[in-house]
Amino acid sequence: DPSETMEGSDSRSVLSEFKMSKVLSESAREKTMFIHGKLVDQDAVVILEKPPITEDTLTELFSGSTLALDMKNDIYSTYRLQPPPHLNEMKVTVVCPASEKHLKKYQRQESYLVEETAEDYSSITLPYIESQSFSLQWVYNILEKKAEAERIVYEDPDPDVGFVLLPDFKWNQKQVDDLYLIAIVHQKGIRSIRGLTAEHLPLLKNVFQKGKEAIMKKYELPASKLRVYLHYQPSYYHLHVHFNMLGYEALGCGVERAHLLGDVIQNLQSNPDYYKSHTLSFPLRAEDGLLTKFREAGKI
Amino acid sequence: DPSETMEGSDSRSVLSEFKMSKVLSESAREKTMFIHGKLVDQDAVVILEKPPITEDTLTELFSGSTLALDMKNDIYSTYRLQPPPHLNEMKVTVVCPASEKHLKKYQRQESYLVEETAEDYSSITLPYIESQSFSLQWVYNILEKKAEAERIVYEDPDPDVGFVLLPDFKWNQKQVDDLYLIAIVHQKGIRSIRGLTAEHLPLLKNVFQKGKEAIMKKYELPASKLRVYLHYQPSYYHLHVHFNMLGYEALGCGVERAHLLGDVIQNLQSNPDYYKSHTLSFPLRAEDGLLTKFREAGKI
Repeated sequence: DPSETMEGSDSRSVLSEFKMSKVLSESAREKTMFIHGKLVDQDAVVILEKPPITEDTLTELFSGSTLALDMKNDIYSTYRLQPPPHLNEMKVTVVCPASEKHLKKYQRQESYLVEETAEDYSSITLPYIESQSFSLQWVYNILEKKAEAERIVYEDPDPDVGFVLLPDFKWNQKQVDDLYLIAIVHQKGIRSIRGLTAEHLPLLKNVFQKGKEAIMKKYELPASKLRVYLHYQPSYYHLHVHFNMLGYEALGCGVERAHLLGDVIQNLQSNPDYYKSHTLSFPLRAEDGLLTKFREAGKI
Repeated sequence: DPSETMEGSDSRSVLSEFKMSKVLSESAREKTMFIHGKLVDQDAVVILEKPPITEDTLTELFSGSTLALDMKNDIYSTYRLQPPPHLNEMKVTVVCPASEKHLKKYQRQESYLVEETAEDYSSITLPYIESQSFSLQWVYNILEKKAEAERIVYEDPDPDVGFVLLPDFKWNQKQVDDLYLIAIVHQKGIRSIRGLTAEHLPLLKNVFQKGKEAIMKKYELPASKLRVYLHYQPSYYHLHVHFNMLGYEALGCGVERAHLLGDVIQNLQSNPDYYKSHTLSFPLRAEDGLLTKFREAGKI
């Protein structure tokens, strides 16, 4: 009975009180939609996503649904199927109150590739990050078990090389096909791969090794089925590592933004200043303030 | 009333008579599933797909659904939503009778990540490539204008640093949103990035520079809208470079297989033996002969 999981009228009515103002973006391929509106006079973003189809529901789906024929041609026919509601939920994420930054993040935008030299990092990117003072409170809440403690899949509590491993919001944890976990390191102050030197090798190797072991133990997925990587630019400036099921084409796993953890470790081993000295390419959205800074500096 | 569209008991019951034998493939990202089974003793493939979320249903979706809270942390909360069934249909395609060819077409090929050390390359990969004697005749036909000459977008005929630039077969050339061009170098004998050393820097820089200029000239796309990369493993062992429109998520642009040309150039500049000495990760499909070789060597 799905009503057992209801959390009272509060959660039941949150969407009926939502006053939509516009669709920020959508993906017909991924069946997602990002919507801006108001919840009790506060700006909010509502994210709708249809979850993957799962094998364990098929028997009930085939026997318990109603079916309407759309088209028949030779050996091909198509139908519309209405599944029982409990087999066909949508995932909803609400961000409230949502800041201007959230709205920009979810607004569909064109991207531009920036080639950031080491000097560009010091003179453009780092000052920009510092000026923005992005809040990391939600990350610290996780590390300090003030939030999402029950979602933690694995923890190594060591303050230097330790980390917390937990499912990414994008993953509903019902099937491993789109497995998506995040390892958040306990060490504070490492903003991104730009902050990494050879001194962080024990931390990186520990996350790589123990993260893979924890996933093997809990989900029975061996290392050969995993894509393990960092983003540059990351979406928040506290070091974290992405673990995906290999075949799952997660957003942001493209070569222009992702850096395999195995490559990062090797690059630091052979050149301790690799990420302090190399030019790094990454995409920025049209309305990203950092792109404006690169434009103003005549770099794009 | 959805029952108005029903085509009688025939269509309503087609799925309840379906005897499923196995899931051929699925996409967690695209919310699709391909299932093999029998319909009245005939082989059949049933394809399930969740359609995109449409804006015109949102008002009814928000007011008419039930909602269950999953998680709350700071400004973020997630819910499971049960929409009214008529707003949340699935698309079903039935192929019946399905031939062996249909089954193969829809069968997922699982991939495994291989971590190839420099030694693995010499002892496993290179002997395998040589034993296969893949024909490169079609590549030579292009370089010698014996085929596809009319498709060439740009050529630098220099035998050492020159190349031919032409549209990839996957691109229909009707819009630049999914622009996909390939630069094939004139120099023979460079199988892949494993074959690159600092001596190839003039060639790589020339392809990068002139390729971008040719695309700017012909398609008016600046370098900041391009993803320029090589594959490892490549699909054929004659050096070639991929040029995509940045926002287009082409197959094979994931970090596990793609290497940005800009990074390759920098890596060779700071370490002439980078690609001769580093471990390189790449995915191989389950039925790839090279994967068998890595398995036999106990490397996976």
